Amino acid sequence: MRKILILGAGRSASSLIHYLISHADQQEWRLTVADRDAAHAARLVQEGPEVATATALDAIDPSARHALIAAHDLVISMLPAAMHMDVVRDCLKLKKHVLTPSYVPDAMWPLDAEAKDAGLIVLNELGLDPGIDHMSAMRILDRIRHEGGRMEAFESYCGGLIAPQSDTNPWGYKFTWNPRNVVLAGQGGAARYIRDGVVKYLPYHRLFRETVRVNVPGYGGFDGYANRDSLKYRAHYGLEKIPTLVRGTLRKAGYCAAWDVFVQLGCTDDSYTIELPARATWNDFLDAFLPRHPTHDTRRNLAATLGLEPQDEVMTKLEWLGLFDHTPIGVEALSPAATLQHLLEQKWKLQPEDKDLVVMWHRFRYSVDGVQQELQASLAVEGRDQVHTAMAATVGLPIAIAAKLVLNGKVNGRGVLLPLAAELYDPILNELENHGVLFGEEEVPV
Amino acid sequence: MRKILILGAGRSASSLIHYLISHADQQEWRLTVADRDAAHAARLVQEGPEVATATALDAIDPSARHALIAAHDLVISMLPAAMHMDVVRDCLKLKKHVLTPSYVPDAMWPLDAEAKDAGLIVLNELGLDPGIDHMSAMRILDRIRHEGGRMEAFESYCGGLIAPQSDTNPWGYKFTWNPRNVVLAGQGGAARYIRDGVVKYLPYHRLFRETVRVNVPGYGGFDGYANRDSLKYRAHYGLEKIPTLVRGTLRKAGYCAAWDVFVQLGCTDDSYTIELPARATWNDFLDAFLPRHPTHDTRRNLAATLGLEPQDEVMTKLEWLGLFDHTPIGVEALSPAATLQHLLEQKWKLQPEDKDLVVMWHRFRYSVDGVQQELQASLAVEGRDQVHTAMAATVGLPIAIAAKLVLNGKVNGRGVLLPLAAELYDPILNELENHGVLFGEEEVPV
Repeated sequence: MRKILILGAGRSASSLIHYLISHADQQEWRLTVADRDAAHAARLVQEGPEVATATALDAIDPSARHALIAAHDLVISMLPAAMHMDVVRDCLKLKKHVLTPSYVPDAMWPLDAEAKDAGLIVLNELGLDPGIDHMSAMRILDRIRHEGGRMEAFESYCGGLIAPQSDTNPWGYKFTWNPRNVVLAGQGGAARYIRDGVVKYLPYHRLFRETVRVNVPGYGGFDGYANRDSLKYRAHYGLEKIPTLVRGTLRKAGYCAAWDVFVQLGCTDDSYTIELPARATWNDFLDAFLPRHPTHDTRRNLAATLGLEPQDEVMTKLEWLGLFDHTPIGVEALSPAATLQHLLEQKWKLQPEDKDLVVMWHRFRYSVDGVQQELQASLAVEGRDQVHTAMAATVGLPIAIAAKLVLNGKVNGRGVLLPLAAELYDPILNELENHGVLFGEEEVPV
Repeated sequence: MRKILILGAGRSASSLIHYLISHADQQEWRLTVADRDAAHAARLVQEGPEVATATALDAIDPSARHALIAAHDLVISMLPAAMHMDVVRDCLKLKKHVLTPSYVPDAMWPLDAEAKDAGLIVLNELGLDPGIDHMSAMRILDRIRHEGGRMEAFESYCGGLIAPQSDTNPWGYKFTWNPRNVVLAGQGGAARYIRDGVVKYLPYHRLFRETVRVNVPGYGGFDGYANRDSLKYRAHYGLEKIPTLVRGTLRKAGYCAAWDVFVQLGCTDDSYTIELPARATWNDFLDAFLPRHPTHDTRRNLAATLGLEPQDEVMTKLEWLGLFDHTPIGVEALSPAATLQHLLEQKWKLQPEDKDLVVMWHRFRYSVDGVQQELQASLAVEGRDQVHTAMAATVGLPIAIAAKLVLNGKVNGRGVLLPLAAELYDPILNELENHGVLFGEEEVPV
């Protein structure tokens, strides 16, 4: 009987645990879910009490963590990204394979040689983005290379959004993920990508203006804005000489132009506490970022300052949020970003019956024997309910399937790995299809 | 014979030292100039070898610093701002008055009670800005208050620029001050000020767009952009309830719109190393911040991206810098800001015969017995040459005159002080007039 340890049982662990429990007897494994919140861990394993155990663990306690890892055959770390390094060092010491859904931190690469020497697998970036993006891209890139194609452009966008039947507001958005990350998205330095052989840098204040329109079959139009760093994917994907490589994030069409208002005004700044009058209203909040205007009409002032038409859809979206209303903000002594987040958490709240949507879209431009070709691949997954969300499925299932492959000796790679090899992406993507996580492909005339 | 110690002999020390040497016999004082660079200190005192001594000091060496301070009656710290705290603590311990030209750091205020108890003067912000701005504003504010006026608006702008006869480029600017500070000006958080009773926040990417036009008699038009924090001056100046208070920096008219291009593109970002092709040209540099454009013409791309007319004066300024030229950049592996600075240091270099210009402008709006009034006060000082600059005079003379007042027992205030009281601003401003540092006043019809 193989023993699997899951460290940390956050939001995205439900599908992972469900998979591991439901395959426990067939695969002859048993499962321990360790979380700081023992009651939460207990709820997650109640589906399979005979095969899964919950335990309390403060993962920053090295001896408790060490003892628990020592008693298992494979470790899945769902802890906050900053804690993976400690877990990986324990696993190297105790000779355990370890899987994480998170980006490989720079500090992990120096452990690659040690892991290889010990014959261990340290497999990361096994979620949705990063995760399914890598696997679906590499499967198609390897096929194109196998057919003798020369890659000219690779563009890839992903978004965690809301299913069409739950899309009930003009933004086309509700929080299915960490609200703070959504409000601060794109901050922390210029986005960088390569276009027609030129490395391009896009500062935050132009990020939501210079977007691309992406069409996902069956789901309509989306805005894509560039992610922080597309350049590192050149090396990951073996595309060192590709002239165009851009990765980005998807929002419903029209979202970015409206979000850009907050960026332009400075409402997403998290670096200072905003001084507002006592009993300030949302109208006062906007007004704090606008120059003096003769009419004292915030709508007209905002439209004039940012060059918007009064009837612009952007204005409709701001109206819908109540930003021109004279209703009290209700919080104080926060940063602009945290104040705005307080409003959005009320307006973009997921309702009990709401379902989420995960969308991914790739475009491959390449030539075979001098003939230009274009292939688009897209994925759209809707959640079943608020527990079995599309996000939990797409983040949790790849790592669950990868755990099975590792335990069954199907993974030959050793060291610090990403799921870029066919021995990983083929079985994982094939099995994901059985769970409704399925890419459609379309050849586009050039 | 009183003994004055000057710690640090930077660019702005020349006028200070000249004043102290030329008044040494009359005022019965002797002077020591201590600098890390002994040869530099020696050059600065060679005008008065019989009254002034140069000495080498590494000011971060506590015992050497302590010994030197102990041997003097008054200390003037011209060291980098971060080092003032150590000097002030020494002075409190050794019971010496101390003067600095720099902003009071938050960490200094807790020493106020100790300094008061010891009967010591810790007098700061004694340069141009801060310094002459405080004194000239407070003199007029106190006069208005004395006449029963109620302040409605105070706006104050200052700039270190270039004298008209040296103004030989379309930017109206050359480096008379630290180039890095000019390139990074306005970064580090939203500017904040109060306008019509509303606290306003202006993010960096709108700072050079939302400027005001200021006219200085005899010197024409200037652009004013808001400084980082105008709000703290409410308390300094006793203007807690004033509806409008803005402080800012002056550039020659037209400069800000052109500088805004760099801000919009992201060329002033100092947070990352830009990846440019080998032998990159200035045209490549601009291109890295621009989206793809069908014509591959950087001029047209830039104009289209930022909504400029091809014949706009902004374009002329960029052309003049050679930014569309295919000439090599000549540096590599720097941040965008440092790369841009490399170009500007060549183009905005002060020539041997060039003279600098210091400009300050205040506007006071107030009412007396219900009658609206407006007063504008302005200062323009031209440098004599590259040693006797307007900047050195306006930064160095106030502190020299303040030293005389302190030594002669004319300052009754004790503790951590700014030059806000009449006992300081009256004698200092009066004596500055003899040195050509003279405000003009104009009543403006409302």
